[in-house]
Amino acid sequence: MNAEADRAQRHRARMQRQKTVVDAAIARADKSKGLLLVLTGNGKGKSSSAFGMAARALGHSMRVGVAQFIKGRSDTGEEAFFQQQKNIIWHVLGEGFTWDTQDLERDKETARRGWAVVQTMLHDPSIDLLILDELTYPLKFGWLDINTVLADLQNRPAMQHVVITGRAAPDALCQTADTVTEMRDIKHAFQSGIQAQIGIDY
Amino acid sequence: MNAEADRAQRHRARMQRQKTVVDAAIARADKSKGLLLVLTGNGKGKSSSAFGMAARALGHSMRVGVAQFIKGRSDTGEEAFFQQQKNIIWHVLGEGFTWDTQDLERDKETARRGWAVVQTMLHDPSIDLLILDELTYPLKFGWLDINTVLADLQNRPAMQHVVITGRAAPDALCQTADTVTEMRDIKHAFQSGIQAQIGIDY
Repeated sequence: MNAEADRAQRHRARMQRQKTVVDAAIARADKSKGLLLVLTGNGKGKSSSAFGMAARALGHSMRVGVAQFIKGRSDTGEEAFFQQQKNIIWHVLGEGFTWDTQDLERDKETARRGWAVVQTMLHDPSIDLLILDELTYPLKFGWLDINTVLADLQNRPAMQHVVITGRAAPDALCQTADTVTEMRDIKHAFQSGIQAQIGIDY
Repeated sequence: MNAEADRAQRHRARMQRQKTVVDAAIARADKSKGLLLVLTGNGKGKSSSAFGMAARALGHSMRVGVAQFIKGRSDTGEEAFFQQQKNIIWHVLGEGFTWDTQDLERDKETARRGWAVVQTMLHDPSIDLLILDELTYPLKFGWLDINTVLADLQNRPAMQHVVITGRAAPDALCQTADTVTEMRDIKHAFQSGIQAQIGIDY
């Protein structure tokens, strides 16, 4: 046997072992349920990941609900794009960051009105995927009560997936979640003086 | 002045200071360029974040190119969804993971053919956003030469954004990138025996 054939055979044997391991892990994971996913951390990719899941779900003819907290701007690419699609309901519930409004009571009232909209979607089993974009901020700032939010999430339809995004997700939320990803900022173009780019950041 | 009014005023003052800081940071970031973004790490959200940016870009009438390395499956929601859209070109270039094919030379040949497709998009200034999904694996496994890939990225149109996803992004790639996010797996439903969920994981 020459060296190249020998190398190819060793590669094949190694990959067969790897395949056995991967296949067994996949076989063990046999449960299905509505997931609660939390995308947190300071890095780029939290909201965009949620919107990518919206695209995936729509591609499977699932129904999607989106509630954007905080964001007040109305020129985002995601909203322009998804508003044209079927099977998706899109709510912009925010008025910008609290340092923009500078009015705590108004922020609280806005958040509470927003949560009432979310509650109707959390009671609607026809919504397969619900995205609560930047929900962590109203929780962090105390505009919404974490226990109310957790109870409402707990009581949602069994197969409804919920994705929550935003920095500094509360511990109690992460403990309840099925999947938690921390987006870690290794580096960010903004730190090099590059402004938010259309189509990338909004 | 009563306690509540005092509290509201202190909140306002704090938020005014915060707004000054944020506004100054935004004013300093005045450059615009085609970004190279790397989304890596073991956590969920890398590919979905890239597809979320695709949605954003399409919402701003930008043109998007997608090249999916590795993935051989043809039932993904993202592909079904985006193939129906205007202004997006979608290439599935993979044949599954190397432990599926178990043939190193075939994997290399598949990756090289895939890169040739990418090169044409890297020469096309009409593509505003180019997504190279799971490109890190062909690099990690040595199917593609990192120096060739870096040189081709370097020579792309000045305003073209490129997003590269996948675990274990090579250091040389991260050094070249403008933005690098590590998706850290805090916990994952799969570890609790929950299978890949339609609309969430594919």
